[in-house]
Amino acid sequence: MKKVRVLIRPKKGLLDPQGRAVQEMLRERGLKAKNVTVGKLVEFEIEEEQDVKSLVERYIVNPLIEEYEIEEIL
Amino acid sequence: MKKVRVLIRPKKGLLDPQGRAVQEMLRERGLKAKNVTVGKLVEFEIEEEQDVKSLVERYIVNPLIEEYEIEEIL
Repeated sequence: MKKVRVLIRPKKGLLDPQGRAVQEMLRERGLKAKNVTVGKLVEFEIEEEQDVKSLVERYIVNPLIEEYEIEEIL
Repeated sequence: MKKVRVLIRPKKGLLDPQGRAVQEMLRERGLKAKNVTVGKLVEFEIEEEQDVKSLVERYIVNPLIEEYEIEEIL
């Protein structure tokens, strides 16, 4: 088995209402946060021979609205 | 400014209904995924002198039900 971490973010230029809400909340508290994004973190273990990229694109992310990064830990 | 990445996971032992749903969906498709978890990925930029740990614990995570990891990129 290998461990897989998928970092998923809303695509740049698309709405990220959660990120905007967090940013406004921080600013109301005097914290000068910028470029706040809220995405998803999906982690799992899977057989080593599994093609993770196709699995992630098919079942985990929505490539129309999300971008992603895969980290594999053997 | 520094870039901050916060990896947020449901605490071990607590329910993770999204993770269970993804795991079952993968298994129904013949993919032997294990220990699937679905959490959140929060990223932002903030002033370098800002204490990120206290900000994250106060405003970003719910430490009763979530665990987190902070990665800072100067």
